[in-house]
Amino acid sequence: MAEKILRVNMTTLTGAFEDVPSEWAGIGGRALTSAIVAKEVPPTCDALGKHNKLVFAPGLLAGTPAAQSGRLSAGAKSPLTGGIKESNAGGTAAQNLAKLAIKALIIEGAPVDDSKFYGIQIAKDSVKIVEATELVGKRNYEVIKTLSAQIAPKVGVLTIGPVGEMRMAAANISVKDPDGNIRSHGRGGLGAVMGSKKVKYVTIDDTNGTGTPIADPEKFKGAARAFAKAILEHPVSGEGLPTYGTNVLVNVLNEAGGLPTKNFRTGQFEGHDKISGETMREIIVKRGGKPKHGCHAGCIIQCSQHYVDEKGEYITSGFEYETIWGFGANCCIDDLDTIARADRIMDDIGIDSIEGAVIIGVAMEAGIVEFGDGPGTLKLLEEIGNGSPLGRILGNGAASVGKAYGITRVPVVKGQGIPAYDPRTVKGIGVTYATSTQGADHTAGYAVATNILKVGGFIDPLKNEGQVELSRNLQIATAAIDSTGLCLFVAFPALDIPETLAAIIDMLNAKYNLTLTGDDVIALGKSVLKTEHAFNNAAGFTKQDDRLPEFFSEDPCAPHNLTWTMSDEEIDEFWNF
Amino acid sequence: MAEKILRVNMTTLTGAFEDVPSEWAGIGGRALTSAIVAKEVPPTCDALGKHNKLVFAPGLLAGTPAAQSGRLSAGAKSPLTGGIKESNAGGTAAQNLAKLAIKALIIEGAPVDDSKFYGIQIAKDSVKIVEATELVGKRNYEVIKTLSAQIAPKVGVLTIGPVGEMRMAAANISVKDPDGNIRSHGRGGLGAVMGSKKVKYVTIDDTNGTGTPIADPEKFKGAARAFAKAILEHPVSGEGLPTYGTNVLVNVLNEAGGLPTKNFRTGQFEGHDKISGETMREIIVKRGGKPKHGCHAGCIIQCSQHYVDEKGEYITSGFEYETIWGFGANCCIDDLDTIARADRIMDDIGIDSIEGAVIIGVAMEAGIVEFGDGPGTLKLLEEIGNGSPLGRILGNGAASVGKAYGITRVPVVKGQGIPAYDPRTVKGIGVTYATSTQGADHTAGYAVATNILKVGGFIDPLKNEGQVELSRNLQIATAAIDSTGLCLFVAFPALDIPETLAAIIDMLNAKYNLTLTGDDVIALGKSVLKTEHAFNNAAGFTKQDDRLPEFFSEDPCAPHNLTWTMSDEEIDEFWNF
Repeated sequence: MAEKILRVNMTTLTGAFEDVPSEWAGIGGRALTSAIVAKEVPPTCDALGKHNKLVFAPGLLAGTPAAQSGRLSAGAKSPLTGGIKESNAGGTAAQNLAKLAIKALIIEGAPVDDSKFYGIQIAKDSVKIVEATELVGKRNYEVIKTLSAQIAPKVGVLTIGPVGEMRMAAANISVKDPDGNIRSHGRGGLGAVMGSKKVKYVTIDDTNGTGTPIADPEKFKGAARAFAKAILEHPVSGEGLPTYGTNVLVNVLNEAGGLPTKNFRTGQFEGHDKISGETMREIIVKRGGKPKHGCHAGCIIQCSQHYVDEKGEYITSGFEYETIWGFGANCCIDDLDTIARADRIMDDIGIDSIEGAVIIGVAMEAGIVEFGDGPGTLKLLEEIGNGSPLGRILGNGAASVGKAYGITRVPVVKGQGIPAYDPRTVKGIGVTYATSTQGADHTAGYAVATNILKVGGFIDPLKNEGQVELSRNLQIATAAIDSTGLCLFVAFPALDIPETLAAIIDMLNAKYNLTLTGDDVIALGKSVLKTEHAFNNAAGFTKQDDRLPEFFSEDPCAPHNLTWTMSDEEIDEFWNF
Repeated sequence: MAEKILRVNMTTLTGAFEDVPSEWAGIGGRALTSAIVAKEVPPTCDALGKHNKLVFAPGLLAGTPAAQSGRLSAGAKSPLTGGIKESNAGGTAAQNLAKLAIKALIIEGAPVDDSKFYGIQIAKDSVKIVEATELVGKRNYEVIKTLSAQIAPKVGVLTIGPVGEMRMAAANISVKDPDGNIRSHGRGGLGAVMGSKKVKYVTIDDTNGTGTPIADPEKFKGAARAFAKAILEHPVSGEGLPTYGTNVLVNVLNEAGGLPTKNFRTGQFEGHDKISGETMREIIVKRGGKPKHGCHAGCIIQCSQHYVDEKGEYITSGFEYETIWGFGANCCIDDLDTIARADRIMDDIGIDSIEGAVIIGVAMEAGIVEFGDGPGTLKLLEEIGNGSPLGRILGNGAASVGKAYGITRVPVVKGQGIPAYDPRTVKGIGVTYATSTQGADHTAGYAVATNILKVGGFIDPLKNEGQVELSRNLQIATAAIDSTGLCLFVAFPALDIPETLAAIIDMLNAKYNLTLTGDDVIALGKSVLKTEHAFNNAAGFTKQDDRLPEFFSEDPCAPHNLTWTMSDEEIDEFWNF
């Protein structure tokens, strides 16, 4: 069963399987989505127009028994940043696609009559485009439930909520997880691109799909075992994340003074204990929820969870540090139940929860609701789902809120909200925010690892020295990892345990009968970044887009009382590789 | 009485008169505002932050008896376009400033406590910054009336309405005209910059001001006479504009098929007769309004008017073609009274009427109100003044509306709404829209003159040939004219009657004891454009910003059924000078 590209044209409402061009044969995930977008999408096109394309690609290891290999990359020109976007998510869709030997799904064009929405139904060697009228306006949990009942309990689902239908620039794409709950291609507004193509959902039924074979199964098995061992041995991926989830970071960042509080005014939050990973675990255990949960089959880190209410009823999962930081410290809401409700609403209406958190922080700055107002916050999120004028201001991102209300404390880079680590206090991540092709994105080059967690060595987070090189190395490595389909958290063991990278390379070589080396992996990462950077430059980006907002250079961040002091020249060194 | 720069610091709430640096001695108007902004404002700064500066400068001939010499330039980094902005207006302020020998007013900084608004009260050799509490939230007609009563009937007033106070990116700055009515620095959101500095108004009391002397009064007198003669001799400035105002253009552009209709769908409007200059004159005469009126003392073209209601009560003045086109053809409202009410509301709340028209067109595209809905339109304008969430979406410009509602038929360049001439049918003005440092702006290089009115020769509006050169020559000449403080309409005689330019140069030489030639004037125009272009590039603009929206290249415009076909390479030739 040879791998294929599935191309769906929404102008003609047709789909076809195509052979994989040789240039794309050896790449997957982010490397592939970015290569396709760079080749086929005019960089200056309207992100919500018919010339943009929405691309999904599982990673190179998707569908194999490798641990952590179920991430799916989604790519397009972003309506939020105006540049190229890759956003990756867990859930079941990557493995479903891999089972059907679909290397990439490209959705292009747009219906001339834009009054209808459609579903794309994929099965073994077949694709159907059907009207999705009855699901229009429906929220994601319901859409997933309805489609799973209609098609098959295990069918993979990609869907947009009302926010994506309304083409708001912070709309995400939801991915069904193994329990029928929600993971998200969160960042960069790809849900709006899907909405502009009038695609409400994609289903992937992998019945009778066998995927592509592993060339050397024995070698693969050995490498996969070594890889899993390294993950479980490392204190972050083997202990911290499984025990507390990503929310282990609240107390860590608060201690470091890098937990952005009250829309990035200070670096410590009085209520940090009430929203910490430790407290969250206690609550979940006491109420009978699940403190550990994997977002895809084969996940051994299990950083997800089922957060439940006092009656033990499910509220949300994939309840991440960045969301909890964002509504907690950033919006001064020290109540986990409220934040869990916010997360639930955002997943359901289909909006990125990081952007959502930054949006509400800026809305509080503008005085729309007070800092700390939990019920007011939930009401604002509902407004987004309902598409009221205020909802549209909010749903188009933090920059949109700042513009609507004429305020300047707006933490965004390239139009995308800055996540959960203050760049004045964790300077390595500041370089990543500034330079990433993706807009402000902590996952693009997670310097927090080395600045704060002392993974891969230590570089003082409070000083400028070494941060550009750190961010560059991490961004290169991340671009490569995002191409394998592995969860980014494998970077923790990879940075500290030499066997990890060797095992990843061995798995790739065993699967595809290749002779890749570590240098090839670095070269791949560099090539991905350069492809993305070239797209952005052709779209009209310049060095001036690689800058943090003015206020970081002016207002010191307590308790360290530092400002952002990286010079333009230092930042621009980033691209010298 | 030597000329001075008046610098007001809104951080310290102090003002001081400074000597004019030699580099600025020989320039005025737009040349001066752009030179000051380029020198003193960091190009990448937040346009609504404390590092931006708002600069007002009368032209070189302001305060002299030269006809048409009362235009005031306002400059800053624009919150609408993100680039440099010069917006010029009539009214009395330029002449008031010139009488006080104030060559430029620079407003910089911003109060740390942003809860208050202030007034800047200028008189002979003095400046006071006073709290303006009682005027906060008040609309422009009332502000002008109140201040004129408080200070002096003839005091000059610059003011912002609630839209500027709320820092919306389409906010304008109002200028009191000789009758106490309103002219506007309309484009580019300079009212939001004034609002961000917490300046509600500036008054200029020129009592005992004598201005600076004319070096050779006899020579000046002769030149001024020749200049006035040329203006009155030319059919456009001597007959068309005085008789019908700028609205003479509705029927002309409709006939040419270049009157953008229904948010730039076609080039002809069924109801053109009902909104034409001919009909408007009839209505005004019948109702006892004023069909002719000058926006400043010394205006002999008198293209303004007092438009009155059926009882003869004043509704609005400075009722321009672009506004009437915008609410008429563009929004399909074929009722002049409704459009006049819209103009009145916009002047009063303080929003650019061209941007306002494009905003409502895009709002109709989004389905917020139906095309042709006059009462609905007036309600939307009131929402802007009231600062409701919908009002803020609208008040931040057409691009903001397009983004909020996820639509792609959004006629803007560099974020600024495209005015009243379809670029597919009047290709010379399309080049101006694309390349102007100001964002889409017909006044920056009015190719309509040569494409449609056959002034300065004729270049076929439907073909690409010659348009770049035409636009370039006009943009250079305009930058020079905008620096003299002369009304742009002197370009009509200047293009056809050789004595016009000679007379302008003679007036400048006579006033300042100079020996300028025509080449010097061209060199000045080029230098202004290059200064502005360099600022924009440093702010992060690239060639990709010199492009029209995608839909102009895709959707043909009836009746000529042409698309925009100028290649990127052709457009980029513009800056080769």
